[in-house]
Amino acid sequence: MNLVAQQQAAPLVSPEILEDNFVIFRLRAPEAQSVKLGGTMNSDYSELEMKKNEESIFEIKIGPLIPDIYVYTFKVDGVTALDPSNNVVVRDGSHIENRLMIPGKLTDLYDVKDVPHGKVTATWYLSSILGMTRRCLVYTPPGYGKSLDSYPVLYLLHGGGGDEEAWISRGRANYILDNLIAQGKAKPMIVVIPNGNASITSAPGDTPLELLLQQSWTQMAAAGAMVGDKIPASLVNDLIPFIEVNYRVKANKQNRALAGLSMGGYQTQLTTNLYPEKFDYIGVMSMGLYSMFGNYDKEQHVAQLKALQKTNPKLYWVGVGKADFLYESVLDLRKLYDEVGFEYEYRESEGGHSWNNWRMYLTELAPRFFN
Amino acid sequence: MNLVAQQQAAPLVSPEILEDNFVIFRLRAPEAQSVKLGGTMNSDYSELEMKKNEESIFEIKIGPLIPDIYVYTFKVDGVTALDPSNNVVVRDGSHIENRLMIPGKLTDLYDVKDVPHGKVTATWYLSSILGMTRRCLVYTPPGYGKSLDSYPVLYLLHGGGGDEEAWISRGRANYILDNLIAQGKAKPMIVVIPNGNASITSAPGDTPLELLLQQSWTQMAAAGAMVGDKIPASLVNDLIPFIEVNYRVKANKQNRALAGLSMGGYQTQLTTNLYPEKFDYIGVMSMGLYSMFGNYDKEQHVAQLKALQKTNPKLYWVGVGKADFLYESVLDLRKLYDEVGFEYEYRESEGGHSWNNWRMYLTELAPRFFN
Repeated sequence: MNLVAQQQAAPLVSPEILEDNFVIFRLRAPEAQSVKLGGTMNSDYSELEMKKNEESIFEIKIGPLIPDIYVYTFKVDGVTALDPSNNVVVRDGSHIENRLMIPGKLTDLYDVKDVPHGKVTATWYLSSILGMTRRCLVYTPPGYGKSLDSYPVLYLLHGGGGDEEAWISRGRANYILDNLIAQGKAKPMIVVIPNGNASITSAPGDTPLELLLQQSWTQMAAAGAMVGDKIPASLVNDLIPFIEVNYRVKANKQNRALAGLSMGGYQTQLTTNLYPEKFDYIGVMSMGLYSMFGNYDKEQHVAQLKALQKTNPKLYWVGVGKADFLYESVLDLRKLYDEVGFEYEYRESEGGHSWNNWRMYLTELAPRFFN
Repeated sequence: MNLVAQQQAAPLVSPEILEDNFVIFRLRAPEAQSVKLGGTMNSDYSELEMKKNEESIFEIKIGPLIPDIYVYTFKVDGVTALDPSNNVVVRDGSHIENRLMIPGKLTDLYDVKDVPHGKVTATWYLSSILGMTRRCLVYTPPGYGKSLDSYPVLYLLHGGGGDEEAWISRGRANYILDNLIAQGKAKPMIVVIPNGNASITSAPGDTPLELLLQQSWTQMAAAGAMVGDKIPASLVNDLIPFIEVNYRVKANKQNRALAGLSMGGYQTQLTTNLYPEKFDYIGVMSMGLYSMFGNYDKEQHVAQLKALQKTNPKLYWVGVGKADFLYESVLDLRKLYDEVGFEYEYRESEGGHSWNNWRMYLTELAPRFFN
């Protein structure tokens, strides 16, 4: 009788990080014909064939990898499977993948270090505009509980197909803030992460069964993403008041930041265009001109940008990777901003539409907020 | 360009719950030779062969299932794979599985209902006894934030191989409390869920990389489970004081409960044997006499039980399923308790060593606490 033995994984080591940052992945699969490795560390997210050895273990060695966080899965005879030797699994919407962390300078900002940790709380609030009680995650910085101070707030938005857990599970926003605050590089701030899908209350496991039985969570996410203009209204009229009543918050423009990636970058633009008096710090990650969506009205957009410019936001930041599939749309956005004379700061990085960029952008943006 | 389309799952419906509570599982797998269904809804956790149709979709229909929560995975040519059509995935330690909820009376207590929701917070505390900063989850009931009241506290312990997230992800403890409190069946209470593995700081994704690179999380869980007596000391000397300083808590025996399952049931027994003055409500789930572990000292145990009896706990509850692999050990425990004249309440259910029982036990126990 052993309560633990039954839960032990096979003694196979995977992934094995070698000293030179090459990595070996292994899967024991005697009955499988083919095992491939897919993941964000492969260029173009290509699937690499693994080789079966005499012990029926499929293996592949890749690298060297730049120190960062990657996610991967195996494809076993065409079906996606997690690595049973690695129980660190992260989720972004429907994407459930194994995590691989290669230690290094950037990873140090994402890791659980020996510094004071803030709290991450899942809480529910009423959205009158969306007609539902919704879940959001709230990071309160170290010391918040014992302090009498009020804090600035960053509202942080996820991308299409994601949910309120993505910036924690994939984005490591809480640990990034812990580490930046400990190093004196970012001001202690509250970070609020809502669900950006207008027809969804919450992450899949926290969605009421009644809703899930009507429609799959993925279908709801797809539907909800199309109702973008209700998200800005709900953010400003439901969520911000909820946070400002329930947390010790500096409730003014100077102490409010809004940032988002991809769909959340679109929502960041929409929100600040519609409510120019609300945020002094604005970060648009991996999202350009939204003329690709229906009902785009350039004249209106230009008027909104001029109104926003008049409120003199302290930072309007646009960042994108050179390989991002939305790169061209960012060129279009910059062209418009330059045409209008709208002031912004531009950050171009390597890489594409990826969490590797979004995490890095947060490490660069958070220190800029509330100065 | 569609930010959402790229994230959409295939339109296959799986699992499909039919009106009579039969369920069809489906997986498209043109390259696979064999797909099996494993899960807690199968007797003996057996793996059932699925049948390939002309569209290369493997299918199986099972049932009727008793309304409850089940978890399942597929085995594709011998390798475990998640259901890509179902993005509700739950984790208990290294076990990462799809969730299937069949609506019904019991499930209603586990689901996200239209009632006020408490908050779930991940927070870190210093354990001087274990020499590390550790993560725990804290449920605060609806109204806690606005109230000036102090609350009773339930300390809730997970099983071997699990971690501080298991009672939330698999156990639905927060929604169980939300629903029982809304129905007036349980007193509003705080629930504190620590990590019960003495050598681990936290759940896999929240464990520092430095630790993970030394040893796999699963190995640490196995090692940590063997150092059971440090967990009671840390619970009483590190965690309880942390909670009582940082939350509005009724800090006395009458308002403290301790319950745990399997390894956590062992730790519940150890803690209340070693610290008989601490808890008035005690729940031991799926764990019997721990004479199977080394260093068992019957004489000492009897003396401890007599001392505990003298403190007159209001409830000492022991529950187990008839098919539990630890059932015999519970018979041994009852024999000893009866021999000593130690008062306890016994609950025997159908089923085995499973979350189906542990969730149900919590719905029965929580209403008994703090009356």
